[in-house]
Amino acid sequence: MIVIKVGGGKDLNIDAIVADVAALHAAGKPLLLVHGGAETTNEVAEQLGHPPEFVTSESGYVSRRTDRRTLEIFEMVYCGQLNKMWVEKFQRAGVNAVGLSGLDGRIFEGKRKDTLRVRINGKRAVLRDDWTGTVERVNTGLLQLLLDAGYFPVLTPPGASEQGEAINVDGDRAAAMVAAAFHAEALVILSNVPGLLRNYPDESTLIRAIPRAKADDFMQYAEGRMKKKVMGAVEAIGEGVQRVIFADGRIESPISQALAGGGTQIA
Amino acid sequence: MIVIKVGGGKDLNIDAIVADVAALHAAGKPLLLVHGGAETTNEVAEQLGHPPEFVTSESGYVSRRTDRRTLEIFEMVYCGQLNKMWVEKFQRAGVNAVGLSGLDGRIFEGKRKDTLRVRINGKRAVLRDDWTGTVERVNTGLLQLLLDAGYFPVLTPPGASEQGEAINVDGDRAAAMVAAAFHAEALVILSNVPGLLRNYPDESTLIRAIPRAKADDFMQYAEGRMKKKVMGAVEAIGEGVQRVIFADGRIESPISQALAGGGTQIA
Repeated sequence: MIVIKVGGGKDLNIDAIVADVAALHAAGKPLLLVHGGAETTNEVAEQLGHPPEFVTSESGYVSRRTDRRTLEIFEMVYCGQLNKMWVEKFQRAGVNAVGLSGLDGRIFEGKRKDTLRVRINGKRAVLRDDWTGTVERVNTGLLQLLLDAGYFPVLTPPGASEQGEAINVDGDRAAAMVAAAFHAEALVILSNVPGLLRNYPDESTLIRAIPRAKADDFMQYAEGRMKKKVMGAVEAIGEGVQRVIFADGRIESPISQALAGGGTQIA
Repeated sequence: MIVIKVGGGKDLNIDAIVADVAALHAAGKPLLLVHGGAETTNEVAEQLGHPPEFVTSESGYVSRRTDRRTLEIFEMVYCGQLNKMWVEKFQRAGVNAVGLSGLDGRIFEGKRKDTLRVRINGKRAVLRDDWTGTVERVNTGLLQLLLDAGYFPVLTPPGASEQGEAINVDGDRAAAMVAAAFHAEALVILSNVPGLLRNYPDESTLIRAIPRAKADDFMQYAEGRMKKKVMGAVEAIGEGVQRVIFADGRIESPISQALAGGGTQIA
C-alpha cells in the first residue's frame, strides 16, 4: 500500500500527480491519496467576508481558528471545490476515484478539543466554539472495501469526533495515520519544496536520507507547515510505515521519482 | 429499498428528516438519500460575484447555466457545504453516513450536452462551455457495497459524463434513476409543499392518489421545479419503482408519514 499526501499549494503539478497515479493504479498498485486545501480556504474565506485567523498552541503549533462558519467554508473548499476537482481529474484519466472526507463513514475519527489553549498575538486565550481535533483512528474497513472493489480513494479533512461532529484535522497527520493503519510500504508527502531542507528555503541543502531511528532529531530543521509534516512522519515511522518520503510535487512523475529515491527518504 | 429525495429549500425540517431516517435505518430498512442545493448555490454564487443565470430549453424546462466557474461553485455548495452538513447530522444521530457525489465512482453517469439549444429572455441561443447532462446509468454496485456494509449513502449531484467530466445533473431525476435501478419499494420526494397540487399554491387542492397508468396525465399540474419532479416520477414508475410519493418535508416524521399514505401517492 502506498499513501500519497498532496498539499493545497498552487504550484503543485496536479496533472503530473494525476498521470503518475493513473500509471501506478493501472499497474495494480494499491494506493490512495489524501489532499489538503489551506491556501484556497484562506482565499474563499476572504471572498465570503470571514477572513482566516490563526492561533498558536502552547506547544508552538500554528492552526486555523475554526468556528462554525469557518468549518462550513473549510468543507466547501476541501470537500467541494478541491476534492471534486481531484476526483474529476482522476476520472478523466481513467482512474475510478471516490472522494470522501474523514467525516464520511468516520474514516478519520478522533477527539474534538473542547477548549483550546492558545496564544493569539502572544496573549494567552482559551477558545470555545472551536471545531478542531486530532485523528486517533482510521476506518480501514471502508477504505479496504473500496480498494478491493478497484476504486481509488481520494480523502480530505474534516474528520469526525466520537460524537459525530465534523472536526478540522490536520491533513498531514491524517495521512500519516492512514499509512500507519495500513502498515504502508510508503507514505509520499508531496509539497512545493524538494524535501526537508537543512537550511530552509535553500533547496541545495536538501537532506537526502534520515535513518528511521533518528527521525526525531530532524524536527529541528522543520519550519512552519513542515513541522506537522515531520511530526506525522515520525509518528508514521513509529507505527510501522516502512518508508516516509518528503518529495517535490512540482516536477514530472513526482510519485515515481519519490519511490525511486528522490526527496528526503526516512527509512 | 427506499430512496429519499430532499430538495435544497430552507424551510425543510432537516432535523425531523434526520430523526426519521435514523429510526428507519435502526430498524434495518435499506435506504439512501439524494439531496439538492439550488437555493444555497444561488446565494453563494451571488456572494462570490458570479450570480446565477437560468436558461429555458426548447421543450420548456428551466435549468442553470453551468459554465466552469458555476460548476465549481455548485460543487462547493452541493458536495461541500450541504453534503457534509447532512452527513454530520446523520453521524450525530448515530447513522454511519457516507456522502458521495454522482461523480465519485461514477454513481450518476450520463451524457454531457455538448451544445445546449436554449432560450435566454425569449431569444434562441446555442450554449457551449456548458457542463450539464442527464443521468443514464447508476453505479448500483458501489451503492450496494456500502449498503451491505451498513453505511447510509448520502448522494448529490454533479454526475460524471462518459469521459469522466463533472456534469450538472438534475437531482430529482438522478434520485428517480437510483430508485429505478434498485426497483425500489418507494421513492419519497420531500419538498416544501404537501404534494402535487391541482391548483398551485393552494395546499387544499392536494392530489392524494394517482394511478400509475395515469401518471403522465398529471404533468399538467406541475409548475416550475415540480415539472422535473413529476417527470422523474413518471420515469421511475415506468421503470419498475413500486410507489412514488410527493410529500411534505416541513413536518415531523416526514418519511414515515409519506410511507403511511401521506402526500401524493403514485402507485
